[in-house]
Amino acid sequence: MMRNYSVRTDLALEERERFESDNVEIPGVILEEDYDEEREIRLTRVRIETENGARAMGKPVGTYLTLETPNLAVPDEEYLREVAGEICRCIEELIDNTGCGKEDLSVLIVGLGNREVTPDALGPYVADHLCVTRHIVREYGKYAMGMEHANMISAVVPGVMGQTGMESAEIVRGIVNETHPDLVIAVDALAARNSKRLNRTVQIADTGIHPGSGVGNHRAGMTEESLGVPVIGIGVPTVVDAATIVNDTMENFIRALESSESLKGVGEVLRSYNAGEKYEFVKELIAPHLNGMFMTPKDVDEMIHHISHTISEALNMLFVNRVSTQES
Amino acid sequence: MMRNYSVRTDLALEERERFESDNVEIPGVILEEDYDEEREIRLTRVRIETENGARAMGKPVGTYLTLETPNLAVPDEEYLREVAGEICRCIEELIDNTGCGKEDLSVLIVGLGNREVTPDALGPYVADHLCVTRHIVREYGKYAMGMEHANMISAVVPGVMGQTGMESAEIVRGIVNETHPDLVIAVDALAARNSKRLNRTVQIADTGIHPGSGVGNHRAGMTEESLGVPVIGIGVPTVVDAATIVNDTMENFIRALESSESLKGVGEVLRSYNAGEKYEFVKELIAPHLNGMFMTPKDVDEMIHHISHTISEALNMLFVNRVSTQES
Amino acid sequence: MMRNYSVRTDLALEERERFESDNVEIPGVILEEDYDEEREIRLTRVRIETENGARAMGKPVGTYLTLETPNLAVPDEEYLREVAGEICRCIEELIDNTGCGKEDLSVLIVGLGNREVTPDALGPYVADHLCVTRHIVREYGKYAMGMEHANMISAVVPGVMGQTGMESAEIVRGIVNETHPDLVIAVDALAARNSKRLNRTVQIADTGIHPGSGVGNHRAGMTEESLGVPVIGIGVPTVVDAATIVNDTMENFIRALESSESLKGVGEVLRSYNAGEKYEFVKELIAPHLNGMFMTPKDVDEMIHHISHTISEALNMLFVNRVSTQES
Amino acid sequence: MMRNYSVRTDLALEERERFESDNVEIPGVILEEDYDEEREIRLTRVRIETENGARAMGKPVGTYLTLETPNLAVPDEEYLREVAGEICRCIEELIDNTGCGKEDLSVLIVGLGNREVTPDALGPYVADHLCVTRHIVREYGKYAMGMEHANMISAVVPGVMGQTGMESAEIVRGIVNETHPDLVIAVDALAARNSKRLNRTVQIADTGIHPGSGVGNHRAGMTEESLGVPVIGIGVPTVVDAATIVNDTMENFIRALESSESLKGVGEVLRSYNAGEKYEFVKELIAPHLNGMFMTPKDVDEMIHHISHTISEALNMLFVNRVSTQES
Repeated sequence: MMRNYSVRTDLALEERERFESDNVEIPGVILEEDYDEEREIRLTRVRIETENGARAMGKPVGTYLTLETPNLAVPDEEYLREVAGEICRCIEELIDNTGCGKEDLSVLIVGLGNREVTPDALGPYVADHLCVTRHIVREYGKYAMGMEHANMISAVVPGVMGQTGMESAEIVRGIVNETHPDLVIAVDALAARNSKRLNRTVQIADTGIHPGSGVGNHRAGMTEESLGVPVIGIGVPTVVDAATIVNDTMENFIRALESSESLKGVGEVLRSYNAGEKYEFVKELIAPHLNGMFMTPKDVDEMIHHISHTISEALNMLFVNRVSTQES
Repeated sequence: MMRNYSVRTDLALEERERFESDNVEIPGVILEEDYDEEREIRLTRVRIETENGARAMGKPVGTYLTLETPNLAVPDEEYLREVAGEICRCIEELIDNTGCGKEDLSVLIVGLGNREVTPDALGPYVADHLCVTRHIVREYGKYAMGMEHANMISAVVPGVMGQTGMESAEIVRGIVNETHPDLVIAVDALAARNSKRLNRTVQIADTGIHPGSGVGNHRAGMTEESLGVPVIGIGVPTVVDAATIVNDTMENFIRALESSESLKGVGEVLRSYNAGEKYEFVKELIAPHLNGMFMTPKDVDEMIHHISHTISEALNMLFVNRVSTQES
Repeated sequence: MMRNYSVRTDLALEERERFESDNVEIPGVILEEDYDEEREIRLTRVRIETENGARAMGKPVGTYLTLETPNLAVPDEEYLREVAGEICRCIEELIDNTGCGKEDLSVLIVGLGNREVTPDALGPYVADHLCVTRHIVREYGKYAMGMEHANMISAVVPGVMGQTGMESAEIVRGIVNETHPDLVIAVDALAARNSKRLNRTVQIADTGIHPGSGVGNHRAGMTEESLGVPVIGIGVPTVVDAATIVNDTMENFIRALESSESLKGVGEVLRSYNAGEKYEFVKELIAPHLNGMFMTPKDVDEMIHHISHTISEALNMLFVNRVSTQES
Repeated sequence: MMRNYSVRTDLALEERERFESDNVEIPGVILEEDYDEEREIRLTRVRIETENGARAMGKPVGTYLTLETPNLAVPDEEYLREVAGEICRCIEELIDNTGCGKEDLSVLIVGLGNREVTPDALGPYVADHLCVTRHIVREYGKYAMGMEHANMISAVVPGVMGQTGMESAEIVRGIVNETHPDLVIAVDALAARNSKRLNRTVQIADTGIHPGSGVGNHRAGMTEESLGVPVIGIGVPTVVDAATIVNDTMENFIRALESSESLKGVGEVLRSYNAGEKYEFVKELIAPHLNGMFMTPKDVDEMIHHISHTISEALNMLFVNRVSTQES
């Protein structure tokens, strides 16, 4: 049951599913699920509450909210506004947990990833559509925004290491030390384990951003520990690792062998392998030139545009529009 | 030996290799190879000379030149200028075959593909860096270019069907009928069968562009038959189909089974399958959501930038600079 | 009173104003104005009904609708949706005039201009956000769109002559001959005479697109005469010609001289010049290197993004969404 | 003679010219000029050596090198490589002055400006084409670069305040404090006084970047004082202020009046105004909506692409290629 092999996923939900399939309760990990049937939006809340739970899940202690809907990349403005509303509520819930307070927040939003590679451009595109307000509030005061309370929103697209020679985390840490936000929100494209998740999932977590995942793996950790302020990570799976796809197919293959009359023997032998052994076996079979490759849908450009727009809208709702509505 | 299954490739070279591995001479198909050891450039010339050869290869009668070098995407300007020189000579050879003549040519260069999806943006990027001259020659005469002979180069990026509602072929046919070039050169990103070919291969063929291939499959045929003028296609493999990758791994897997002591039986059973049966078997195992997905390297943006620049340089050398050099 | 000098403007409204200031009724030209006070939207309708009117105005016979609002580039989604609704109604009025009919229209939308130069990118940006449907209706029939009627929308960004070596009009004519739309709608950035018009004006005319204007002057005429189908032009002033600005200032200067005690003499001399003589005088003073320069606001990027989005929305409303609403 | 009015320019050369036309030697300011006739490259070196000189020039103490060539935006690769060589030597001269040393330098290159507005995109485009090496040297050591010495080059595009809510200077200061480069090089688009300078001038200065200039005025100071390390600024004039153009024309106008028989009186009156009075007079005449507008050539996109490429090449020559050549 220990996690001794790793098919790469950035989604706590997928880590949890791995266990579920083994029918195990994990101590220190709480799972809640809500399904809004009419709007086809599923909200899963994974709380990792103990270090044991964290070890079992391979993810740090914290809360992971996952929104799923089949229609995340569908160009229906009205529906996407409702999804944005849901994302907005999720972020708000996690901010409440941080104890930052709710009024006159100063927030730095970081658009991670590489603007030049379509499936990795989610973070930069979200940053492109944000309403930044920090410079206005600083110059004219919050009354200039026409309200009693006003959040100071700033945004940055740090670029990726191959373009900057620096880790995104270094750049963000420098900016945090210089501009002192109360909170960092980092948006990034993720790698999923299951290609069915592409196009339809948003994960929001209060544990920051951790190395070793994502499309370009462009970051060392950005966490409350390393930055000194709470870090909320918003991630959307936009690619699947090449190795993952192959692995999935192998598992189908092995199942097919197990149920084949003429090949039953193989099935039995293979069944005796545990998941880790199977993975090692498959890994050997994957040509080394597959490393560094990812898989993405052909319509990735439209998908990225729609989803990034929805996330920007959620952030603008939460930090800019909502304030003005509450006050008026 | 007949081709009754199809792992997608746009490269004649890969079609040919399929047979080679079966150690068969294909009537009507001639293969020549040149290797420039010092510069590590391999030039393969596949000539499909008969309809029988065309049927066997699954590609139309014509000449397919393939340049391969491990360094196509390496940022070494001087070396890439030499590669551009090679590409330039290949295009020239095919133009000679068409009988268009060599002087005062009017050429429409078409940048196929989707500018918004990195691995499909090769054609548009090539078009971006061309020296177009048609409007200058038409307005001021060829002496304006300071030479006795001057080619009239025009270029267009037709976009993809999801953006335009039209097939690229319709747009190009309309423009050809209106502007009457002597020759069309279409540049496109291709799908390869083997991920090792990404980053290092350029195919130049005098058979035009054929439907059913490429990243976004964004085109009906553009051929001498449909456009009324010769069409040279320049293609660079930038993606591999998801199904192809999985298939490759399965073949490794099957080979592993064949040589495994405990699983020998399976190996024997599987070995009795022919290639087509194996492919069908694998295809069933691949989840349907893999259709419409492609695989691409993580550094695809740099690769596309470097290669598109080299191809533009080859075209500018051939049509613009060379003329002025010859004349002076 | 005859128009013997020309300060460049693409706006019929500005041509009309020139006369108005001279307090002249122009035969064959009808002017109507509507002002929606609450929403601050002014609609001006200039109808040039006779050839005499056309000569006087320096613009062809036809209907020119001009929407003006101070808030065209303000990021207020709800308000901009109302503006989009107004633009939608204007286009519909002009389509009704053409006699194309209203149902199952086949429309080619052309995004003129240069994507690489911010103030000239309006047309391409509008094209980026259109819902094209032609390929879907052609492949699956209009019932695939879930409605009894469906327009076939196609879109193209022809690029500018410096990129393509071809006139936009050649490219569009070729595509029209190949795909046979019922109607062409061309969207373009315009030059205004008065910098106050930037940011706040949309002109919609049923007379097509005429050479000699716009930012890059990237087009010969696209008219019903040259294309064989009605052509509606949608234009937004995004730049002012350098010479125009200087001219405006000179006029202020001359007025200042006229009212100055010590310089009264000059004022009198200058007042005796007519407008044409003044313009010639000013033109000589403008250094020749000012030709080919234009003037644009510093926040032109946001302005272009907002306005192009509003126009796309108007077109999508009219051709795609409205149909589905009417039917249901 | 005191500078009591200000027509905006970022070029020390133009400040100096202002005095020159008044035929004055400025104490504390040394001017040297070199002209390479064959290649048509003019190098002007303005050294402001004293605080008095600085006050007279309105620019801080330091060295300002200005390269001028009529062909800076002409697409002649070989020639531009020579210009890059000149720029490279200029930067090297200023680095020598700083006393940073020459070997194993750690340099942060900052691409200032707004990628979305063509004439302001120079800095970002330069950053796009740099060879960054810091991450490679840090991970593998300088021997990984195949040389005994290796510079650690990093690059960042901070964006503009309207996009980030932060001043570029805040972002850069944060990154400098975090990554400790020996030297900062900031590249930016400038405003010129004279439109003839567009397209043909590069200014390189060891005094950093100062507020109140440039296209978008997107920065508070970045100087050795504020960042703690030497700052070299590389600037290229890409726009002229609208007010400047108008002012130039007025001066032509006034000269025309002065030499006109019938208007001689005005000429005399106007001649009695000093430059500051004239400027105030003109400023009143310029409509207030001209503020915030700039003027730029129509082919600004090509110009920016060519020049940014040349500057990147100069920086790559200096920091990456030259090292490897010297060592081998």
